[in-house]
Amino acid sequence: MKSNQERIEKHIKALSQYTATPNEGTTRLTYSEEDLQARDYIKSQMKAYGLKVREDGLGNIFGKLEGEKKGAPSVIVGSHFDSVPHGGDYDGPAGVIAGIEIAALFQENQIKPAYPLEIIAIIEEEGSRFGGGLMGSRGIAGYLQKEDLEQLKDKDGISVPEAMKQIGLDPSLEVKRDPETIKAFLEMHIEQGPILEEEQISVGVVESIVGLTQLEVTISGKAGHAGTTPMDRRSDALVAAANIIGKLPQIAIEEGEGTVTTVGRHQVFPNGANVIPDKVVFSVDIRSSKETHIKNVVQKVKDVIRTYESEGIQATVEQSLYMQPKELNQDIRSQLKTSAEQLGISYTNMHSGAGHDAMVLSDITDVGLIFVPSKDGLSHCPEEWTAIHELAAGIDVLYETALKLTRKS
Amino acid sequence: MKSNQERIEKHIKALSQYTATPNEGTTRLTYSEEDLQARDYIKSQMKAYGLKVREDGLGNIFGKLEGEKKGAPSVIVGSHFDSVPHGGDYDGPAGVIAGIEIAALFQENQIKPAYPLEIIAIIEEEGSRFGGGLMGSRGIAGYLQKEDLEQLKDKDGISVPEAMKQIGLDPSLEVKRDPETIKAFLEMHIEQGPILEEEQISVGVVESIVGLTQLEVTISGKAGHAGTTPMDRRSDALVAAANIIGKLPQIAIEEGEGTVTTVGRHQVFPNGANVIPDKVVFSVDIRSSKETHIKNVVQKVKDVIRTYESEGIQATVEQSLYMQPKELNQDIRSQLKTSAEQLGISYTNMHSGAGHDAMVLSDITDVGLIFVPSKDGLSHCPEEWTAIHELAAGIDVLYETALKLTRKS
Repeated sequence: MKSNQERIEKHIKALSQYTATPNEGTTRLTYSEEDLQARDYIKSQMKAYGLKVREDGLGNIFGKLEGEKKGAPSVIVGSHFDSVPHGGDYDGPAGVIAGIEIAALFQENQIKPAYPLEIIAIIEEEGSRFGGGLMGSRGIAGYLQKEDLEQLKDKDGISVPEAMKQIGLDPSLEVKRDPETIKAFLEMHIEQGPILEEEQISVGVVESIVGLTQLEVTISGKAGHAGTTPMDRRSDALVAAANIIGKLPQIAIEEGEGTVTTVGRHQVFPNGANVIPDKVVFSVDIRSSKETHIKNVVQKVKDVIRTYESEGIQATVEQSLYMQPKELNQDIRSQLKTSAEQLGISYTNMHSGAGHDAMVLSDITDVGLIFVPSKDGLSHCPEEWTAIHELAAGIDVLYETALKLTRKS
Repeated sequence: MKSNQERIEKHIKALSQYTATPNEGTTRLTYSEEDLQARDYIKSQMKAYGLKVREDGLGNIFGKLEGEKKGAPSVIVGSHFDSVPHGGDYDGPAGVIAGIEIAALFQENQIKPAYPLEIIAIIEEEGSRFGGGLMGSRGIAGYLQKEDLEQLKDKDGISVPEAMKQIGLDPSLEVKRDPETIKAFLEMHIEQGPILEEEQISVGVVESIVGLTQLEVTISGKAGHAGTTPMDRRSDALVAAANIIGKLPQIAIEEGEGTVTTVGRHQVFPNGANVIPDKVVFSVDIRSSKETHIKNVVQKVKDVIRTYESEGIQATVEQSLYMQPKELNQDIRSQLKTSAEQLGISYTNMHSGAGHDAMVLSDITDVGLIFVPSKDGLSHCPEEWTAIHELAAGIDVLYETALKLTRKS
């Protein structure tokens, strides 16, 4: 094994401390106090391994080891460091730590790359604070304008630039990254599914990533007193929303081929026990490996919503995110597999059911994505777990591949 | 007209300022900053009209005008001053202001009552912070022990005594009031329904109050990633909750005779767009004028919930509040009607579909409850409105009745 398991474990433990919900999983929302603590840790480690650190206009962290070729594009390695509420210690951090450990190995082995090596720690992949998700990589890819970011607000009405300033970040800096400055992007992530564990394989080389869309549905009715409004005079937004949500699983099941729908975020207004709700806002997350399934489900969800509209109940549906299913770069997939073979690490080809920053960055550069096992297939919960030696195996594969990609060619 | 409309309007306007949601209705949660502001205003007005002010161990406010009979029981007049989130300016405050205006009239007319007159402003009738509702009056009636209050927590886990201390109240004071110290309780409230307005009648004399219960339902499932968990491996707490909630209106409709059910409070955990919800907690408010209907509906709600329990989905149901339907004191009803007749104010007998502090206090003393019109029958929303002259008419009836009840007999 090339990577240092003690160091990897130290990083995992360090980052897991920065949570808003101690003993109840990792809750590290973007630009929160816990983001700032994790950010300071990541920056200090990057510096310790000889990287030059900067943050962009979204607070994505870059640590750069210069290459010998003047002005050559970088091989970027990393993942995101935010979490869902009450999530785990591995979804995101595993890949950030992979980057940090690879920088440590470059330093330890006194490697002078031809192409620069950049380690990246990306913000707001989960979308838990500002919705939609993949915000950091979408910014890098040039999909977000400054004006969009001013409009993007968290549930307390705080905009992205306002939230950034609260932890001392500078939203006036550039966000979009010139694709000419990137040679490749490598990401390691936990599988978030049971396959690697069940088949006792160390590494999944991802061939394709699921397409996904998120809808933001708002159901509006009329508030009223729970005791004095007869049943036949009600326009109860929550009853309408409940009827709709109850019908969504069947739509995904009928569509088949692994198509899934999830209502994960759901807020009721005014949310008093004796008030008929006048508004419910909920997200619908729709994923499939085939674009036609996604489009069919979006249409069917809209059709179901329409059947609950009436004089008293209005509904609006906004598509807050749309990502096509993606096939990843074949050359890098081959290099990842060759690296695994050379190291004697078992691997298999996989499809990713989760969206990842790699998916977004594949629009602007060649990307490689590998998975490491998730215990019991669990993720987005405190029980999320990957053994340190499994992380190390994945990091070894990524390190070998980064070595090759940063070499003169 | 005996009462002073300018004074009444001044009080309505003053209290309406103390809201956490300016321009979006009154949100005045118990022991909040806005509670403290309203509390200071109410106490200052009570003092201005010659009352001796004290707060009990729940923060209920009492302003007392001593009577000539030594140690005689008080005639108490008032209502609550908390609100639902985004509620109106009248539900509660109308009755508190009635008490304050009656104190002003006693002072203005230099009335020396035989029995003490006490004006009361009650906390947490709506239950918007601690759930259940009617907390202030239940405390006065002796239904809440200190230990209960320590257990009772808001959504942030803050207990009643902790929250009280945050605004400088003393939870160590006595709460239960000796029934021997009360002669009668009078409350004025807005109707929260359309009848008085439609029939153009000024005052409703309430004969009976609806029975009500509140259930707190917790549905537990299993969290998981929205993209990597196949539909057939999910235990989605929100889908189960939605299916249950969608079926509740029909239960009330089938029960009939004005029986109503409402799910008003509803929280989803962890509430991230790409996480399958592992917990949903919601309230079920059930009301009817007949106890058998309430009992039937509770059973049917539990039966529906049971049908959605499975290996992956667990459910618990707690009954957080139960109030029997109540008939109010006949003598006081007669006195209220006689007062209205003497003043030339139109009135009608009514049934109350909403629970009120008067309902709880009827367990320990004789109570009278009157309604004044609600524009369009609306309440618990920013549009809640009653004309000042309609408030004044109700206050006149209550003042006449308070005069009689505090006289030597």
